[in-house]
Amino acid sequence: MRVIRSIHSLRQVINKAKRQNKKIGFVPTMGALHDGHRSLLKKCRRENNLVVLSIFVNPQQFAPHEDYAQYPRDKKKDELLAKKENVDIIFYPSEEIMYPKGYLSYVTVESISDLLCGKSRPGHFKGVATIVAKLLNCVSPDILYLGQKDAQQAYILKKMIADLNFPVKVKICPIIRENDGLAMSSRNRYLTQQERKEAPILFQSLQEAKRKILAGERNLITISRLMESNIKRYSHGKLDYIECVDPGTLAPLAQIQKKFMIALAVKLGKTRLIDNIIIQIYAMGQRIK
Amino acid sequence: MRVIRSIHSLRQVINKAKRQNKKIGFVPTMGALHDGHRSLLKKCRRENNLVVLSIFVNPQQFAPHEDYAQYPRDKKKDELLAKKENVDIIFYPSEEIMYPKGYLSYVTVESISDLLCGKSRPGHFKGVATIVAKLLNCVSPDILYLGQKDAQQAYILKKMIADLNFPVKVKICPIIRENDGLAMSSRNRYLTQQERKEAPILFQSLQEAKRKILAGERNLITISRLMESNIKRYSHGKLDYIECVDPGTLAPLAQIQKKFMIALAVKLGKTRLIDNIIIQIYAMGQRIK
Repeated sequence: MRVIRSIHSLRQVINKAKRQNKKIGFVPTMGALHDGHRSLLKKCRRENNLVVLSIFVNPQQFAPHEDYAQYPRDKKKDELLAKKENVDIIFYPSEEIMYPKGYLSYVTVESISDLLCGKSRPGHFKGVATIVAKLLNCVSPDILYLGQKDAQQAYILKKMIADLNFPVKVKICPIIRENDGLAMSSRNRYLTQQERKEAPILFQSLQEAKRKILAGERNLITISRLMESNIKRYSHGKLDYIECVDPGTLAPLAQIQKKFMIALAVKLGKTRLIDNIIIQIYAMGQRIK
Repeated sequence: MRVIRSIHSLRQVINKAKRQNKKIGFVPTMGALHDGHRSLLKKCRRENNLVVLSIFVNPQQFAPHEDYAQYPRDKKKDELLAKKENVDIIFYPSEEIMYPKGYLSYVTVESISDLLCGKSRPGHFKGVATIVAKLLNCVSPDILYLGQKDAQQAYILKKMIADLNFPVKVKICPIIRENDGLAMSSRNRYLTQQERKEAPILFQSLQEAKRKILAGERNLITISRLMESNIKRYSHGKLDYIECVDPGTLAPLAQIQKKFMIALAVKLGKTRLIDNIIIQIYAMGQRIK
């Protein structure tokens, strides 16, 4: 495993691999790796000859009041995990390399960046799209692996890649959860003991919604009220949003459709948690009374 | 020479060439090819194994009131010229291919897109940066050839390529002029006979400014007043701007420096013409009185 810090050195290794017809898989991360990242790396390893992991805490996707400074950085632990997953290259650039003085260029995916998390995190997805465009140009992968946990991010990046014709395939991998259902996230380590106990309420309320819907409930307002009251009753969390959206476009739904996503964000103490599920209904009939 | 309309077919040809270690040169255009484009194609031919020319009148870089509908399109003539210059591939996509329904992603190069031509053409350089980002991802060239006539465009694209880490080298080629000094441009064919007679005033006023500066004039206000009065006296043109800028950053200059660019835009009837020169001063002394 090589840890590479410069774009020039990275390109040399990548170009050599390309000449050898190696298939290149890429997992971009902000480090603080957990089993969610691990599942991406495992899939990437199975499907490619060269596995590139990038670790870069991207300042451009944090608003000034957000947690850029505190974001967990643990290079040694990350390297150990990467080695265990047989990563070939860790690309580990500095902020100066990614955003040199006088930096001016940005990628935006309009309108869908303002929905869901975009409402309370203005500029976030512009930062995400920009850094991933840059990383794609540095790594030139054949396949990019993203996690379904950050559903909006995955969708926006997929859209950016299609719109801007980046020659890369995107694979979105399932959410990995703790035993109690909490979606794995680097930010989980911010939680106090009490908050950690309460955090599974996101997934529990999604599951509860799914049960109701599969049992015939079709009213989205009823469902989101139920989720909200669950969160209030069982946690100190402050709801940011609950939304039912089309998983193909992220457009908010006024009515349940055959396949849809419920996504939510909850602030638990100082930590903002997100989660989502996709629900598929096979019988679209009304609720059985 | 092959004319290719689909991105998929283009990529197949490009990937084959890459496997054969061919060097790929790329000249993006909006067609209506003239000797300016020709000079880019000649340089591209000399320096590469595979020459790709794209022809696409990009709707995203025209404001609603601008000349998108009237922009000259002459596929047959363009193909003949391309053949003469030994172009290997003309990439000739449709609007539906480049901007399919639901298109949302854009590239912006902030602040410098609002200077010079950007002031009177809001959104123009966002359209330019976006289409060139897309084309670079389609063509994956080793070298991109741009013309100095569109100096701001060339500078913005160079900046975008550096900032977003596109793995491509940029070469900016000199302005090609008619015998009377008028910079070659597809838009010159809009000019009436009278306007065509007056059009060389842009270059003449730049030359006049250069003479004065080399003779010792150092006051930029004096110089731009002189240019403006020349344009008024010898043409019906309406001045959009005259600016002295740093050729490395496009930042407007308050004072003459060793190397600088004078750029101007003039509306002659319905046609907007631009031109520029770079002036290098070897002795920076004050004017000889």
